[in-house]
This record gives sequence, C-alpha cells and structure tokens, in this order.
Amino acid sequence: MSTNQDAQNFDRQMMQRCLELARRALGQTAPNPLVGCVIVRDGEIVGEGFHPRAGEPHAEVFALRDAGDRARGATVYVSLEPCNHYGRTPPCSEALIAAGVAKVVVGFVDPDARVSGGGIDRLRSAGIEVVVGVEEEDCRQVNEAFIYRSLHQRPFGILKYAMTLDGKIATTTGHSSWVTSEAARREVHLLRSACDAVIVGGNTVRQDNPHLTSHRVGSHNPLRVVMSRSLELPERARLWDLDEAATLVLTEAGSHPEVQKRLLNRGVEVVELDPLTPAKAMEYFYERQFLSVLWECGGTLGARAIADGAVQKILAFIAPKIIGGRLAPSPVGDLGLTQMDRALTLERVQWRSVGSDCVLEGYLNP
Amino acid sequence: MSTNQDAQNFDRQMMQRCLELARRALGQTAPNPLVGCVIVRDGEIVGEGFHPRAGEPHAEVFALRDAGDRARGATVYVSLEPCNHYGRTPPCSEALIAAGVAKVVVGFVDPDARVSGGGIDRLRSAGIEVVVGVEEEDCRQVNEAFIYRSLHQRPFGILKYAMTLDGKIATTTGHSSWVTSEAARREVHLLRSACDAVIVGGNTVRQDNPHLTSHRVGSHNPLRVVMSRSLELPERARLWDLDEAATLVLTEAGSHPEVQKRLLNRGVEVVELDPLTPAKAMEYFYERQFLSVLWECGGTLGARAIADGAVQKILAFIAPKIIGGRLAPSPVGDLGLTQMDRALTLERVQWRSVGSDCVLEGYLNP
Repeated sequence: MSTNQDAQNFDRQMMQRCLELARRALGQTAPNPLVGCVIVRDGEIVGEGFHPRAGEPHAEVFALRDAGDRARGATVYVSLEPCNHYGRTPPCSEALIAAGVAKVVVGFVDPDARVSGGGIDRLRSAGIEVVVGVEEEDCRQVNEAFIYRSLHQRPFGILKYAMTLDGKIATTTGHSSWVTSEAARREVHLLRSACDAVIVGGNTVRQDNPHLTSHRVGSHNPLRVVMSRSLELPERARLWDLDEAATLVLTEAGSHPEVQKRLLNRGVEVVELDPLTPAKAMEYFYERQFLSVLWECGGTLGARAIADGAVQKILAFIAPKIIGGRLAPSPVGDLGLTQMDRALTLERVQWRSVGSDCVLEGYLNP
Repeated sequence: MSTNQDAQNFDRQMMQRCLELARRALGQTAPNPLVGCVIVRDGEIVGEGFHPRAGEPHAEVFALRDAGDRARGATVYVSLEPCNHYGRTPPCSEALIAAGVAKVVVGFVDPDARVSGGGIDRLRSAGIEVVVGVEEEDCRQVNEAFIYRSLHQRPFGILKYAMTLDGKIATTTGHSSWVTSEAARREVHLLRSACDAVIVGGNTVRQDNPHLTSHRVGSHNPLRVVMSRSLELPERARLWDLDEAATLVLTEAGSHPEVQKRLLNRGVEVVELDPLTPAKAMEYFYERQFLSVLWECGGTLGARAIADGAVQKILAFIAPKIIGGRLAPSPVGDLGLTQMDRALTLERVQWRSVGSDCVLEGYLNP
C-alpha cells in the first residue's frame, strides 16, 4: 500500500472516531447537529471532543481544550464544517485559528445557510490547509435529521412499524405483543433514544398502553406525544407516569377542557393545534427545536403523516411469522391510491437482519 | 491444503455437478426425485446423466451408458441413493455392480421406505466402497418436495405471495400489477416451471386474469388449477387459453353442470372434490403423482390452505413501496388467531434480495 493510501486510511479512521464521539450525544443536541472532533499530532490523538447539547460548546472547543498547547501545528478532524458565526458560542473557525492548528479535515459542509462554506473559507484565508469530504456519507448519515431540518425547516420524520410476514401489526382483536424479537425491540428502544419525540395516536394508547421510552438502552428519552382529537384517553396509562419521561398531548382547540385540565394536573403537557394535523405537529416541533420525530402510530395516523409529508424515512421491522386475519390492522391506512403503479416507492433501500427479524430502511421522495 | 482436503473438495465439486444435471429436469420428474449422476476415472468425468422424467431410466443408467467401458473401476457420484427395487426400471444398484464401478459417493439416503438404505447395502455387499452425505444439505434441498412427499404421502405445498412493504397484495380496488420488480416476477416464473401445479381461487381469476405460466423461463409449465365452489368464472380468461399450458378447475360435487360442460368443451379439465378443500385437493394431487404444488391464491384461500396443512413453505416477495389502504387485501386471511404470541412462526428462515425486492423463505412447522 502506498504512503498516500496509508494517509487516506488514517484520515478515515480518525473521522470514524469523530463519529463515535458525536454519537455519544445522540438525541440530545437538538436543534444542533451531532459533531465529534479529534486532534492529531505526529500520528497520535492529543485531543478529543463532541458537542453534548445546545448551549454548550461545540466539539472543536472541547477537543482544543483537551489538546491544550499540543494543538499548535496539529491536524484537526471534525465531522462537520466548523461554524463561522456568533451563535450561543463564538465561532469555532476563530478558535482553531487562534490555537494555531496546521490542517483541518472536515466530514461534510454545513447545510445551514448561515454557515455553509463560511467556516472553511475562513480557515483557508488564515492559511490553514482544509480537506473536505472524508467519510462524507457516514457523516451525513449521522446527521440526516439535522440536514433535513436545515434544508426544509421541518424536523425529520421517521415512520417505524413492526409487522408479521403477512403484513399485520396486530391480530384482529388488536393484540400486538409481540410482533418482533427482543433484538428488534431493543433496536427500537435505541432509536427512541436518538429521537426528540415519539408520536402515537389515542388508539395506540387505548390498545397497547405503551411505555414509549428507550428502556434505558440509551441515556435519553424522547418526548412522548399523543395526538388525540377526541381526548378519549384512559384514566390510567403508562404515558401518564412521568417519572421516566415527559408526555405531551396534542389536541385540537377547545377539545374537552375538563380532560385537558385532568392531564395538566398530572403534569402532562397539553397543546392545542389548529388544525390538528401531522403537518401542523411538525411545524410545532420545529419551533420547539426538534431534529427528529418518530411516528410509532397505527395505520390511520401513519397514513395521515405520510400524506402530510411528515415522514421522510420508513423503518419496517418484519417478523417471520404468520398471524392471518382479513381485518387485522396493517401498518398504513388509506392514502387514496387505487393503482399499484402509483405506490410510493422507497429510495436508498437497505435490508438487514436483526435477531430473527428483517428490517427495511428506505426514504420517501421529498 | 492437505491431499485429503483436496479430495473432499473434489467430491463436493462433483456432487454439485450432479445437482446441476439433476436440475435440468426441474418440474418434470414427478413423482420421482431430481437426480444427477457423474462418473469419474483418474480425476476426469467420463460419464454424466440425470433422470429426465418418470418412466425413463434413472440418472445412473444414463451416466453408465455415457461412460461405457470407462465405468469399470471408476467412482460414481449420485445425488440420491441408487434404487434397489424393480420399479418401472431395473434397480440401479445392480447396474452399477454389473458395470464394475469401484466406489459410489451418495448425496443422501432415499427417504422412500422401499429404497432407504437398501441400495447402499447392496452396493457394499458387492464389495463397492460407498460414501454417503456429500453436499447432503444441497442434495436434500433440491429434493425437498420429493422428501416431503415420501414421508407424508402428500405433495409439498408452497405459498407464494408478493406484497408491498405495508403488507398489501393489491390496492383497495383490487389492482395488483405490479407489486414486485421484473426480477422478482422472473423468479416466480422459474418457480412455476419447477412445480407440478399452481393454484388460485376464482377471485384471482376474476380480478387478475393471470397467465400462471412459466413465461418460457423454464421448459415446463405447471398444471394451472382454479378452485371454485361457485364456478362464477369469466367467460373469457387467459386460463381458458390452453395453447401454452393445461388448466384444471376443481369444484364441489354437482356445482353448475352447465358451467362445467362449457369448460369441458373448451378443453379445460373439471374435477369435483368432496369436500372442496385444500386438504382434499392435496390428496387428489398426490394420487395424480404430483411432487409440488404452488399456492398463488389470495388471502382467503391462502389461509384455508395453511389451516388445512397444505402449505409447508412460504415464499414472500416484499417490494419496498407503500400503497396504503385500510381495506386493501393482505396475503393471509382469517386463521382464527387472536393473540400475537400464537402466530405461526417460520423455521429455517432466509432473507435475500432479488432486484429491488426482498424475498423471505421459510418453513411452517409440520
């Protein structure tokens, strides 16, 4: 292998380390991206850092602190372009220049219009060598929600469901525990810990009485959200137990004030939306600074979320079992499509196994 | 690599060649197995053969003919134990002994009680070295229908369906062309060419007007079967065009004699079953010497076939697309299961990609 290839492999390795660091803050940085940073001198890591949450310093600052004087003349790896604007913290570009680093290797250019390319330009104008696009695909993948939010001013929506091999998410009587294996359910818990909100409809609360927490697989719990027009919600439900995670009920203006009051008294947040639609909910979550929202609802709300453009990614867990049932519920309700060739085709599709189940991930056309 | 391992690799290679030869007769040997045979002397193939169809000689006979005198002292590879009984042809064990072969390598022992172990014993008693179980799993896989038929006195039933990622086999209006990619459909055509019969219900004929042929992907077409109690079948349908393949209508005793007559006049076979059930149909197909039957029906008949024990294997094609529809049909109708933990769990499950789709293969518990 040539020295050039050795160097490229080393760069990739360091960028992967940045991503490892970045992921430590999964689910906790909204509305900010997940960023990791590694500082290397003479082939050795002398500083590391990641962005832990909004309001705290960026990854580069933590890494520079960690490196101290050793940052001078060093190479900095950072999964996202350093910022060049005064936000809640001073620009990282200036901090890197002040530290006297020799070279900066960047995962991908910030999609945020306030930053895009500016940080890189600033570093170059200060005489620092900048390389862009190392492990770019992985870096973008980790921040797909951040990128989507930056470009569309909406949180990134994920529809997740678990179905049998014959396409049912529950039996004819609504019984659904469990469709998938423990390994698959554990992956869902991890997914929740990476999201800012997880949404269900009133029917899921009535039928399944879910926890919707990350079950301590991750360090973070999403905001648990129930969308309910009728507010016909059970008196007792795991979602009203707020010890582990907060719960928000979204309803329409003026719906059952007495129920709203009862929920508020328990500490459940209640917000009225007008109209009460998935699109409006996403607008609300955007204002609330969320990056990613996980739809874990049944087929009716799931179909509305898709039709409303509130779903960008689909994560389907498929269990190798047959339950049958002509009227057993399936994962997506009415979309008004009557011709098979009008089906919504997923892009960038990936299949993989988890436990005894199969997971398909894919993206809906924007 | 040791000489011993070289020899083992060579054996495996020769057995795979046997299977290649065996598969040339896919769909054409019922009720007999698919068997290939290779004769090797001094490391070179001197004879090859396969069993082309019932009534014709077995694979060993063709290979011995091909080898001629060179069979003397040679090693014979055969994917299934040589027969030792007088059926429509004399026993292969005797033919091998008469040819003076030195060694026989067998894929797997015949499950047929009339044969099992007998052929091997006869060869050994004649002083021929016999090795059993080379590439056994692959050999058994190719003959899974034959093995099932031998053990259970029923043809092997395969339920095949194609559904969207949200578990629908058609839209709410019944439109279903096409759910899967061309690559997946081509695989279905191949599958049909390997089966003795393909079955649908009257509803599929009315809705889809299918060809149910192998579309010349294979050299063979299955018998196309419609199960219909009502005989409310369209006047014109591709299945009544018998140029490419034969069609059989299974109905119940005494159902609409005038319709039966009309079908018979067209050359369509009509058979009355009492009762008209999947189990009874499988009994009938067994008597008709079939090895494998492909259920390509909708959810209602599919569920009855499962409940009746007429399905041993499931082949689910899943397309990465979303069609939606609360009442859109799903692949398996009512099985009377109301608890998710009572679902029928598939065994020996395998996922793989075909074109843009995913295929899952698995086996129902006997």
